[in-house]
Amino acid sequence: MKYTLSVLVENQPGVLSKVVSLFSRRGYNIDSLAVGTTEDPTVSRMTIVGEGDDRILEQVEKQLNKVIPVIKVRSLGEDFVSAELMLIKIACEAQSFGEINQIASLMKAEVADVSKGTVTLKFAGEHEKCETLCGLLRPYGIREIARTGVIALEKGS
Amino acid sequence: MKYTLSVLVENQPGVLSKVVSLFSRRGYNIDSLAVGTTEDPTVSRMTIVGEGDDRILEQVEKQLNKVIPVIKVRSLGEDFVSAELMLIKIACEAQSFGEINQIASLMKAEVADVSKGTVTLKFAGEHEKCETLCGLLRPYGIREIARTGVIALEKGS
Repeated sequence: MKYTLSVLVENQPGVLSKVVSLFSRRGYNIDSLAVGTTEDPTVSRMTIVGEGDDRILEQVEKQLNKVIPVIKVRSLGEDFVSAELMLIKIACEAQSFGEINQIASLMKAEVADVSKGTVTLKFAGEHEKCETLCGLLRPYGIREIARTGVIALEKGS
Repeated sequence: MKYTLSVLVENQPGVLSKVVSLFSRRGYNIDSLAVGTTEDPTVSRMTIVGEGDDRILEQVEKQLNKVIPVIKVRSLGEDFVSAELMLIKIACEAQSFGEINQIASLMKAEVADVSKGTVTLKFAGEHEKCETLCGLLRPYGIREIARTGVIALEKGS
């Protein structure tokens, strides 16, 4: 079972290290982690996607709540918006630019850079859609990929 | 001085913890960190934005190269594509939906969810543009923000 945690923490050095080592000490794997600022500059939000049963999820939540600079831990249920960001650089000669442009337009990816022999696309979407885009571009030759972890917010107020 | 590091690491438990604690032990601050998979499932890419002079950057690179599961460390110069992703939930009554829709369209943000009393936008762009969008939406009342760290790829091949 995959779980998604939204964790508000105080924005101070060492917090990320405390949270991450809590997982690694117990051998709990982190599928994806994204950390960024919030509207309050003293507070950061971490979005952690992990894999484990209800017992592990409960343990993780309990342990996270004990870490001092952690303000709030929330496990997101079914009803949330999630996305990740990907930059993908593909080998591209003049003759295949039209096709790659079509794929970008179809998937709503943006052309972020065109250089001699390569095109870099920027795409933000759900994890599965990132995988689909990679699949479509693979035949052209993927040179480099940079991806963020997943971020998520609950729907509604 | 802000620096951006692109670090390829082996995708195994505990690597993130090793890298992050390297920074926190030395008191080097991390402005933003994003970690995600690459085309090779055994390799992850971390993008780290930090602040420090040339001496600190050199130290960080040297120390990172000593961490065993680190495959490659590259400091990105001037010529790179970078972006971060933001989900932003704003208070929104029926009468202000038109204005928010205009802002979204102007900034090329996507409406990710509309619920009673709130709208959630998804935006991928450079750090400064994320700040601009926050500034434009602040008067309506920002309820929640989730942001990834910055990811970056060098231009060209």
